[in-house]
Amino acid sequence: MKSFNPPIRTLMGPGPSDVHPRILSAMARPTIGHLDPAFVGMMDETKQGLQYAFKTENDLTMPVSAPGSAGMETCFANLVESGDKVVVCINGVFGMRMKENITRFGGEAVVVEDNWGEAVSVDKVEQTLKDNPDAKILAFVHAETSTGAQSDAKTLCKIAHENDCITIVDAVTSLGGSELRVDEWEIDAIYSGSQKCLSAMPGISPISIGDRAVKKITERKTPVTSWFLDLNLVMGYWGEGAKRTYHHTAPVNTLYGLHESLVMVSEEGIENSWDRHQKNHEELRGGLEAMGINFLVNKEDRLPQLNSVIIPDGVDDAAVRSTLLNDYNLEIGAGLGAYAGKVWRIGLMGYASRKENITLCLSALKQTLDK
Amino acid sequence: MKSFNPPIRTLMGPGPSDVHPRILSAMARPTIGHLDPAFVGMMDETKQGLQYAFKTENDLTMPVSAPGSAGMETCFANLVESGDKVVVCINGVFGMRMKENITRFGGEAVVVEDNWGEAVSVDKVEQTLKDNPDAKILAFVHAETSTGAQSDAKTLCKIAHENDCITIVDAVTSLGGSELRVDEWEIDAIYSGSQKCLSAMPGISPISIGDRAVKKITERKTPVTSWFLDLNLVMGYWGEGAKRTYHHTAPVNTLYGLHESLVMVSEEGIENSWDRHQKNHEELRGGLEAMGINFLVNKEDRLPQLNSVIIPDGVDDAAVRSTLLNDYNLEIGAGLGAYAGKVWRIGLMGYASRKENITLCLSALKQTLDK
Repeated sequence: MKSFNPPIRTLMGPGPSDVHPRILSAMARPTIGHLDPAFVGMMDETKQGLQYAFKTENDLTMPVSAPGSAGMETCFANLVESGDKVVVCINGVFGMRMKENITRFGGEAVVVEDNWGEAVSVDKVEQTLKDNPDAKILAFVHAETSTGAQSDAKTLCKIAHENDCITIVDAVTSLGGSELRVDEWEIDAIYSGSQKCLSAMPGISPISIGDRAVKKITERKTPVTSWFLDLNLVMGYWGEGAKRTYHHTAPVNTLYGLHESLVMVSEEGIENSWDRHQKNHEELRGGLEAMGINFLVNKEDRLPQLNSVIIPDGVDDAAVRSTLLNDYNLEIGAGLGAYAGKVWRIGLMGYASRKENITLCLSALKQTLDK
Repeated sequence: MKSFNPPIRTLMGPGPSDVHPRILSAMARPTIGHLDPAFVGMMDETKQGLQYAFKTENDLTMPVSAPGSAGMETCFANLVESGDKVVVCINGVFGMRMKENITRFGGEAVVVEDNWGEAVSVDKVEQTLKDNPDAKILAFVHAETSTGAQSDAKTLCKIAHENDCITIVDAVTSLGGSELRVDEWEIDAIYSGSQKCLSAMPGISPISIGDRAVKKITERKTPVTSWFLDLNLVMGYWGEGAKRTYHHTAPVNTLYGLHESLVMVSEEGIENSWDRHQKNHEELRGGLEAMGINFLVNKEDRLPQLNSVIIPDGVDDAAVRSTLLNDYNLEIGAGLGAYAGKVWRIGLMGYASRKENITLCLSALKQTLDK
């Protein structure tokens, strides 16, 4: 067994995206104790950095000590009680996973289905909420990583509240990459990932929980099944004026990395980060369209940070991705589900969203397709 | 918000322990995709490294992508079904947490209680198993991090099997630091942490699951509540001949660190690592006893890697720890529960278990107490 020295890739898939050298370097700083006063100060700053990125003043804003899937599970484990009716929108892999969460925690899932690659239909959601006046939660994916489609989170939250539902929103791919305003849009519970538009390493999941959701959690009749993800306990470690009660050992070095990525977001400005993702998307789009490559998602619903494009007829998906990886050290993503072999997912996320990556990707793809 | 540069500490508390510079450096290597062929090769090696450290050939040996608490929860979430009777041994904080897990997953906990600081009583366990012939699982902590007491895992597993129970064992603090033989002792499910005697950063939890436990998992009548921790799904990613089916995004850089720590374990030899921890414990013990400081735990039940010592009469616990931290950058651990303010926990774990640390700790403690 020998030390592992990874190849140097350019990561333009659906995530993880390229991690900025400043963040890699932060991860290598010496570990300190998770109850060290210096660490506690860094936790406070991390919380503030996340509040800035989420555009929220929610006190319960913090990173869950595990990947985005655990951030999702934190929201559902705490908010769904046995018997709760939850309207869940499925337009890709992560809506399906939401449904799986609801069912496992004893909830009743009412599904609103849309085609993969399309945004969630606001009209269908409105009708479903009207047909299910006993529904308590609306759950949907803001940025569907499996297809590159973006849904109208603002309107969906408005409709949910008009129908007395709180909202759980998946923002794994949107945070930092496209407009997201937790307080203004009145999102009640949201989770994201570190390894997409924040350009940090995978393994940690920022979440933010608003007052309506906190109320539902504190009024639970049954304990949260998961001890590790029980927000009633985690709040004692991360909450306002918390005594930093020992709950679990925080992933110290991973938090160094997340902290550094939030410093970088604050330096750039969150709106500037959204703009950069949009501009770079347009440049990539121009180049792809000039090569005759078309997008899966309608123009108005496209995520700038995740470009799903249709593989041209007669092109061998796996062979192209393999050539890009082996000859150019360039990773792009495969399609999922019905789109396996039919779609590529090209990410322009965080640090990976920059001009040199677009140039590399377009040129390498052109050379490979022209062979 | 500015970059965070932690103070440089010597970590001699209950964990995290000092992370070796080789491991910190591995964490900072460039992130690659979690489905990259190069990454998949590293996963295979990590699995082999864990099998070596655990002394097992269990195929289902892998790191859970979250801290030790989630490793614990993985074992209980998968093995405990609603209504299962579980005999659980409590002789410190982590036995209590086991009980909490059992209850949350719908199991019936039958508690065998021992004083904090003592080993689990083999006789009491045997009697309890006889009194509860319908019990399905025996759960106990091999190395109680809250007290520094070690229990006789080999005998406890033997008794469990004689009474048709499978075993869940907490080895968070023992793995790498004291004798542990998963296959020879017939441990059925075991979890550990990265941030103790493996000297890696916190945030990942090695587990190993044997055939009896796999059988119980595959024969479950109800799905595992947690999607994130469902081993039926995780096996598709980490299992033998697995297709590396996408389940969640692995914490790539944290795994680089764990891999490097396992390379270092294999270079030293696991038995040599146990010996080093024992020898260094004896040296620390000699120094402490010479200062008139006594141990909490009986000699035969002491963990070499975690030394719980009684704070001398009239000494201000918090003031001493604060002086050690601020003047010497040395962290030692406080007592927990009934031992808060009465005990210090001095860790000699992994990379922190070395002569210079012992010398620093003894000298700094002497200077502080003599003030």
